[in-house]
Amino acid sequence: MFDRVGIIGLGLIGGSIGLALHKTKAARQVVGYDMRTGVGEQACAMQAIDVACTTLADVLQGTELVILATPVGAMHTLLKGMGSLIEPGTVVTDVASTKAQVITWAEELLPASVFFVGGHPMTGKEVSGVEVADATLFMKCLYCLTPVHNTQPIALNKVITLIEVLGAYVHYIDPVEHDKQVANVSHLPFLASVAMMTTAAEDATWSDAALLAASGFRDMSRLAGGSPEMYRDICMTNSPALVTMLDAYIATLEQIRTQVRLQDKNILNTFKEAQQLRLQWQNTRNFTEGEQNP
Amino acid sequence: MFDRVGIIGLGLIGGSIGLALHKTKAARQVVGYDMRTGVGEQACAMQAIDVACTTLADVLQGTELVILATPVGAMHTLLKGMGSLIEPGTVVTDVASTKAQVITWAEELLPASVFFVGGHPMTGKEVSGVEVADATLFMKCLYCLTPVHNTQPIALNKVITLIEVLGAYVHYIDPVEHDKQVANVSHLPFLASVAMMTTAAEDATWSDAALLAASGFRDMSRLAGGSPEMYRDICMTNSPALVTMLDAYIATLEQIRTQVRLQDKNILNTFKEAQQLRLQWQNTRNFTEGEQNP
Repeated sequence: MFDRVGIIGLGLIGGSIGLALHKTKAARQVVGYDMRTGVGEQACAMQAIDVACTTLADVLQGTELVILATPVGAMHTLLKGMGSLIEPGTVVTDVASTKAQVITWAEELLPASVFFVGGHPMTGKEVSGVEVADATLFMKCLYCLTPVHNTQPIALNKVITLIEVLGAYVHYIDPVEHDKQVANVSHLPFLASVAMMTTAAEDATWSDAALLAASGFRDMSRLAGGSPEMYRDICMTNSPALVTMLDAYIATLEQIRTQVRLQDKNILNTFKEAQQLRLQWQNTRNFTEGEQNP
Repeated sequence: MFDRVGIIGLGLIGGSIGLALHKTKAARQVVGYDMRTGVGEQACAMQAIDVACTTLADVLQGTELVILATPVGAMHTLLKGMGSLIEPGTVVTDVASTKAQVITWAEELLPASVFFVGGHPMTGKEVSGVEVADATLFMKCLYCLTPVHNTQPIALNKVITLIEVLGAYVHYIDPVEHDKQVANVSHLPFLASVAMMTTAAEDATWSDAALLAASGFRDMSRLAGGSPEMYRDICMTNSPALVTMLDAYIATLEQIRTQVRLQDKNILNTFKEAQQLRLQWQNTRNFTEGEQNP
């Protein structure tokens, strides 16, 4: 299906793509590159890749599809370095959590003879690193693709094939709209989780309260365990959309605070509406998953 | 072990206690009472109770241990009604999520010849009702007991026996301190989840963003699916502690908002600290669970 696929950045996502490519035998050869010492070897040992390249030039040479799976913060430097090394006709895609900024960088830094298609798989774990990579990570998840006016169909098709190999569903979306939507349903939840973990631990009750914390606390603090570097990069590249969501969240919390302070029994309606919304979302999700299931 | 145990309020918790008492054969007879039509019969059919009583007098007659498992909001009226019907020497315990208010009501409304011990099992589900009751709901969970200066040892021992039958661990705690701690690790997480669900759905992106929402959003919105009535009662009986926690949470979010707005790379430290705290909590939990495991 593919001849030679290159993965740059061998963490949870990069490693999982490699494992899935091997499992499905979808590529003649999978090569990988990671700046961090020993990670390429580790990925090789796990059979996430066939060859651990030691330079950027090596991973790009003769490679038809290059997948950028580094943190967003590393991508500017990476794309800059690739600009003079990459062969004409190569298709490049990324898996970053924010899209507008990355697409701008790619347009700026890659030669016109190279085809870039932005992507973002809607999956992940709260732990990171190639050691937790998983060939089934993408199964039945939505995989955002953000083609723009000058995206070549041949490049798009190659990335669509990759998504199918991973077992995910293609979801077309405008990059700016993507960034607003993930600020809402992905990045705000992370920040809300971080703030909750921090607030809980700063309270005088924490040393004892930590013992009482049960499954509710566990779920609400889970995202706070996510990669600090990845989320820093997300905040740096999606700042305006995130500020909008944070403002809305704080305003909602202020309303709830007023109802709690006044012991206003109408808070029941606030809770009923939220319960209803949550139920509707669950139903939509099931419906959507069913519909998309081939 | 027990002769006749009475459960008032046959929802998730009341029903689960009944199922656990049956499973362990710890009571000669379990009787139940619920104001809602048909719920007693449903609990009978599920074998959560042996007899569905139709009046408060029936459920109290000849009963050595009475468990109050109604919403907190119903407890004042319930205790008032019990005052003239309950037999001397009866031990009464409750499972309400807030303790100081309930204890005050019990002292005020039950005769001095009746022994009250406040309790709160640290378990639950985001769904409610006897139909989701589960005999294993309390296994290995912490079960708060809030004895006060005049709590009788004989009464306390009876409730401790119940907790052991349920497979939970006794955790002694002062009622006011309990309310502060659960405001931190249980009630604030619920309000944060409600606010997140509401904020997400009010945003212009929601109809599309709902499709992109993945496991992070799922976990962060799960608690918002909880019983509106139960949480209204919690807010009404734990208002000051909850306002304190909401203020702290909003202040933390404001700090994060500033860092996001300024694209301040030091936000990495905020995230690293939260990740560390989350990890520490996980480790403490494992340690504690291991320690308490008999």
